[in-house]
Amino acid sequence: MKKICAIIHNRANYGSIKSVLLLLKKNKSFKLQIIVGGSANLERFGSVTKIIKNDKFKIDKKINFVIEGNSPLEMSKSTGLAILEISNSLDELKPDLVITVGDRYETIATAISASYMNIPLAHTMGGEISGTIDESVRHAVTKFSNIHFAATKIAKKNILKMGENKNYVFNVGCPRIDEVKKILKKEPAELQRIINSFGVGENLNLEKPFITIMNHPVTTEYGSGEKEISKILKIVNKIDIQKIVFWPNPDAGSEDISRGIRKWREKFGDHKTRYFKNLEQKYFYHILNKTECLIGNSSSGVREGSFIGVKNICIGSRQSGREIGKNTFMIKNKEKTLLSLLKKILKSKTKKIRDNRYGDGYAAERIVKILKNINFKYEKKLKY
Amino acid sequence: MKKICAIIHNRANYGSIKSVLLLLKKNKSFKLQIIVGGSANLERFGSVTKIIKNDKFKIDKKINFVIEGNSPLEMSKSTGLAILEISNSLDELKPDLVITVGDRYETIATAISASYMNIPLAHTMGGEISGTIDESVRHAVTKFSNIHFAATKIAKKNILKMGENKNYVFNVGCPRIDEVKKILKKEPAELQRIINSFGVGENLNLEKPFITIMNHPVTTEYGSGEKEISKILKIVNKIDIQKIVFWPNPDAGSEDISRGIRKWREKFGDHKTRYFKNLEQKYFYHILNKTECLIGNSSSGVREGSFIGVKNICIGSRQSGREIGKNTFMIKNKEKTLLSLLKKILKSKTKKIRDNRYGDGYAAERIVKILKNINFKYEKKLKY
Amino acid sequence: MKKICAIIHNRANYGSIKSVLLLLKKNKSFKLQIIVGGSANLERFGSVTKIIKNDKFKIDKKINFVIEGNSPLEMSKSTGLAILEISNSLDELKPDLVITVGDRYETIATAISASYMNIPLAHTMGGEISGTIDESVRHAVTKFSNIHFAATKIAKKNILKMGENKNYVFNVGCPRIDEVKKILKKEPAELQRIINSFGVGENLNLEKPFITIMNHPVTTEYGSGEKEISKILKIVNKIDIQKIVFWPNPDAGSEDISRGIRKWREKFGDHKTRYFKNLEQKYFYHILNKTECLIGNSSSGVREGSFIGVKNICIGSRQSGREIGKNTFMIKNKEKTLLSLLKKILKSKTKKIRDNRYGDGYAAERIVKILKNINFKYEKKLKY
Amino acid sequence: MKKICAIIHNRANYGSIKSVLLLLKKNKSFKLQIIVGGSANLERFGSVTKIIKNDKFKIDKKINFVIEGNSPLEMSKSTGLAILEISNSLDELKPDLVITVGDRYETIATAISASYMNIPLAHTMGGEISGTIDESVRHAVTKFSNIHFAATKIAKKNILKMGENKNYVFNVGCPRIDEVKKILKKEPAELQRIINSFGVGENLNLEKPFITIMNHPVTTEYGSGEKEISKILKIVNKIDIQKIVFWPNPDAGSEDISRGIRKWREKFGDHKTRYFKNLEQKYFYHILNKTECLIGNSSSGVREGSFIGVKNICIGSRQSGREIGKNTFMIKNKEKTLLSLLKKILKSKTKKIRDNRYGDGYAAERIVKILKNINFKYEKKLKY
Repeated sequence: MKKICAIIHNRANYGSIKSVLLLLKKNKSFKLQIIVGGSANLERFGSVTKIIKNDKFKIDKKINFVIEGNSPLEMSKSTGLAILEISNSLDELKPDLVITVGDRYETIATAISASYMNIPLAHTMGGEISGTIDESVRHAVTKFSNIHFAATKIAKKNILKMGENKNYVFNVGCPRIDEVKKILKKEPAELQRIINSFGVGENLNLEKPFITIMNHPVTTEYGSGEKEISKILKIVNKIDIQKIVFWPNPDAGSEDISRGIRKWREKFGDHKTRYFKNLEQKYFYHILNKTECLIGNSSSGVREGSFIGVKNICIGSRQSGREIGKNTFMIKNKEKTLLSLLKKILKSKTKKIRDNRYGDGYAAERIVKILKNINFKYEKKLKY
Repeated sequence: MKKICAIIHNRANYGSIKSVLLLLKKNKSFKLQIIVGGSANLERFGSVTKIIKNDKFKIDKKINFVIEGNSPLEMSKSTGLAILEISNSLDELKPDLVITVGDRYETIATAISASYMNIPLAHTMGGEISGTIDESVRHAVTKFSNIHFAATKIAKKNILKMGENKNYVFNVGCPRIDEVKKILKKEPAELQRIINSFGVGENLNLEKPFITIMNHPVTTEYGSGEKEISKILKIVNKIDIQKIVFWPNPDAGSEDISRGIRKWREKFGDHKTRYFKNLEQKYFYHILNKTECLIGNSSSGVREGSFIGVKNICIGSRQSGREIGKNTFMIKNKEKTLLSLLKKILKSKTKKIRDNRYGDGYAAERIVKILKNINFKYEKKLKY
Repeated sequence: MKKICAIIHNRANYGSIKSVLLLLKKNKSFKLQIIVGGSANLERFGSVTKIIKNDKFKIDKKINFVIEGNSPLEMSKSTGLAILEISNSLDELKPDLVITVGDRYETIATAISASYMNIPLAHTMGGEISGTIDESVRHAVTKFSNIHFAATKIAKKNILKMGENKNYVFNVGCPRIDEVKKILKKEPAELQRIINSFGVGENLNLEKPFITIMNHPVTTEYGSGEKEISKILKIVNKIDIQKIVFWPNPDAGSEDISRGIRKWREKFGDHKTRYFKNLEQKYFYHILNKTECLIGNSSSGVREGSFIGVKNICIGSRQSGREIGKNTFMIKNKEKTLLSLLKKILKSKTKKIRDNRYGDGYAAERIVKILKNINFKYEKKLKY
Repeated sequence: MKKICAIIHNRANYGSIKSVLLLLKKNKSFKLQIIVGGSANLERFGSVTKIIKNDKFKIDKKINFVIEGNSPLEMSKSTGLAILEISNSLDELKPDLVITVGDRYETIATAISASYMNIPLAHTMGGEISGTIDESVRHAVTKFSNIHFAATKIAKKNILKMGENKNYVFNVGCPRIDEVKKILKKEPAELQRIINSFGVGENLNLEKPFITIMNHPVTTEYGSGEKEISKILKIVNKIDIQKIVFWPNPDAGSEDISRGIRKWREKFGDHKTRYFKNLEQKYFYHILNKTECLIGNSSSGVREGSFIGVKNICIGSRQSGREIGKNTFMIKNKEKTLLSLLKKILKSKTKKIRDNRYGDGYAAERIVKILKNINFKYEKKLKY
């Protein structure tokens, strides 16, 4: 029985791997180990730990390593502390394989810990292109990884070009899509009630049109977050429609954006707007499915959005370079274009613009099948 | 005036960048900052700090982050602690560019710290291929680096293939060779005396033939070091010739090798053998120049060795994949082949086998010229 | 010129030493160094850094070491990380004396760092008695300290009984009182406006009566904070009077109390209540001076409260053992007694109940005079 | 069944608690947990881990937190890292009581971790008086401890004077003496052989007289260690007698002393001298029992020495203040007095000078009996 250890760092992270964990847990060839760290244990970012437990997973280790401070210095140092904590956990759990997701500081910390401890590493979402520090982290993690589960054809090609061993690179689709597919099958009866019992602000009527704003900090633009979100809020408020606003995720710079939202709210109040720290995925994807338009810079709009077909106005550099479907409209200069683009979208009659470039809902099945048949250990060497 | 910050971690590291530091220090376009960390401050590995001061450099920060323990766990955790310390130092010194060397855990710690703090990173010795964890680290550092100073043509090509921006990748040769060239111009009068006043064991006569053993731990073969070095010592001792033995560098596994050497010494004594923790470069390269043969797995044999032309028996996987010159003989099964190969080399009449693949002695000049004219900051993105 | 280094960890901490810092800064015998750490740099606890800068102090080092997590484990580990960071700072600043305040985890971290680095330590607020872990920390810090500035006669006696050297123990009064005295001399014209422009909730009229609630987490009662604050809020809301509620300070357990306040607010709204994260001292002490009654477990009520004479209902174990003036009413079972006691106080005609047991406003002058004339270094040994 | 967790940091530490661990392990009222940290896992200080395993104890956690560097800065920072690691371990093991020994940096780290995590703490060897930072640490640990197992009558009195609760302070004798008593019952047949197969230097004849040198670093005299040991070696070498020299324990400053020993050895060779990193206790106490005289500053000479009756020349401040028996001769100015005192001792006809002030060999029995009947949890408060 092979011990597979997944490390979950936040809500998004969990959603990106959940379908794989569910299959691994059921499969008798594997013993699943789960480490929960990063902001996933922190109440002020929505305790993901509880969600994981509700999904009936056993958590083997809970670790905390987020150093408060909200500047690049603390993000860097949290990476260091993460390595200390993850190394300790791996030493205790002694997995045969570590599986890690994406491109966050916790991901590179995981990659380094596993590599120096001679534990093979599998990576999902490698080979994609984006802006900011995530870009460097993602490809660095590829260079540490033994097994690559790319989410798209292009991503697989990129990983191979970077010199990885072709026997260990697979295009399986994104496991997030597995979850999206499952969730969208049926709308939860309680959706309308949930929306108005969580979060703060005015109540929403989901039968009527609404737009959704979701803006995360951009590490390389540290310090400008307050201005950015303020501009967006100012523009979208020119349109008389219901609004959902999400607080940013807790990277360096999140305080800036939060402050921008708080100030807006204190100054102008809650006209038809409801604010969420986060929403469980089973509700969130229905919101994406129902919203007239998503506005901001979140990867959900690009990724799950292309499968869902939600119209997505993506502002600034955070997703630049990222493979996008036709549902996404990249804009740079929001002052000039956001308002007109948003008006156009709200008038359009095409409801959805779908494609499968990020997966068809069977990523987890492919991954687990591969893990059953592959050798985890081999010596990595640039393949040119 | 641009502030350039170099981070020195050990003796080898210093030798790999010294020629660059000397030129940067003299050049009025730059303010040189030096951080000394890793084992470089530790007396038991030969205090590199003193050597740096003797070379008239000002050390801006001394940091210690080596967690004792000599297992992969501690190597991983030392990386974490290194990030904490290096981040603090960078926050204090606020350089415009960080320059880092090679493929050690301190190198990846430097790369992560600089990247998360939005400080551009220059990397030397990227794009090369080798065995073990260093391979992963080296390429991961490439993915974090903004400016690449490759040491060979092939290395440059590899970096480009990995998707780096061609305006920022340069083949300059290895700065170590600059130093080697300078040092070999003249043998220090005190060489013979120094050899017999440092280290322990029997006195050596440098006028007479001697061989040199230098074996470092291999992270992916953790635990086998004692056996390996014992086998080598057993075989080379079948030949009646003077010997120099170096203690291993302080990676995970060094205690194993050290124990092997200690036990050998306690059991068989010091027949014509002298033991060194380390030697200043100005003596070391003359030893490489004078020795009949180098035996072990050090990169010096491959790298500086090809320029010097010293015959180099390279055992095991540590340098496998590495670009080698004709001076180096790679062997796997040392029991069978080491003795016969060594005998053959000792009988051969060709004294030296030289080439310039790792540089011609002008790397530092090229690097400094490039740094004067290049923009440090740009957004990295996979170039395919 | 003697270098004196003060380490500030939070708002309360700063208030406890500010008057001393002001005098040290002016005095030519000293060079003042200031390190700001703990929650003092964190925006979500009210950035004390800005207040310190506004007071025209130069901050020599800003350090962050709060590991998020809000459980005893993280409080313990933050202490460890604090030692790493404070040690680095002291190594850089090389003070002749470190001055530390009180009984927090940052205080013991400071004491250990200074002691192991052979830097003499001065401690204020030692020798007092209280509940919880603070009690152990305070006396442990006394055992590390070279110079003791006790705030009361009894505290001085206690320090001597613990075996400290009588030539180094002084009753100087509490420096907080120096500030209180200065601040109360004149009410800021903007007080009414400030109160209604900071914080959230309903506007207050300071001309009319109001009560003030300030409840902090109790480490040894970890997990019960939400219940405690909810009970208090329920009872005080039975009385129709304006209310000020402060969010708790960021010790382990603060999230519990915050959640209690948030839930109360979401459920019942803001009837005549205004909520503050914190208030600058120059406004806070006027609030204490004006409030009909302070309710909770803060030390301000006991300490500055006795000098101000504000009536103070102190609930639970957090201040138990603490030397109290006649202004403070200690109660255990709040369900039964809080409401009746509060009603009685609100009816009473005596406006203030003052004494000088915690100082007369001249602590800083005494401290600076002593520091000018005392030898910092001596070998500590139990004096029995 | 109460879970009792002991934390072992080095050889001396283990010897100080071993007899207690043996009894706890046998006793069905307790579940014994053992954490091994500090230098106890490090091969270069003699792996105590192996000794513990040979004694048939199960080790629950091995942790490493020694940051290399050998200066006060690293000692302080190792304390910080120790808190991070010990806290993690306690969170995992969740003991009902932690038991800690003495006055080292690992001891205060243990005390802080347990206290902030609300785990009751028992402390042995509190209340004693000595020189250096150990003095501060010991009493600070007393202030964190819930249960005090003093080793002498005077120590118990001191703990009570410091304000501890008399129901929780006990004079039980020192558990080290339990071990000494047991070990001295019979000399191991292999003693002579062991002495000459471990260590380095010349062989010794234990039938003939020998003296023993054991000098440890003094934190408050950091930097002077090399000079100190050199002086001692110079003087004792004036006497023609066999010598045993121990390398120092790994506190800040140990490298200085080690260098002094190495230089001496390199310069003058091994005339009748044998050098040990350490010796297992079962041999060491027989050496103390057989040696003509112990010279240096070790606590063994004072403590176990008084029970054994070995003549002990104690140099410098390291044991000053310590309760001493008649076997110990404290000297300050070694240049003048060491040689004459040593000569006098070597001529004397009294073989041993014994007393029981540090215990009678039944400490462990008393401790375990108390632990069975006492409540671990109570709120600490200064008892004056």
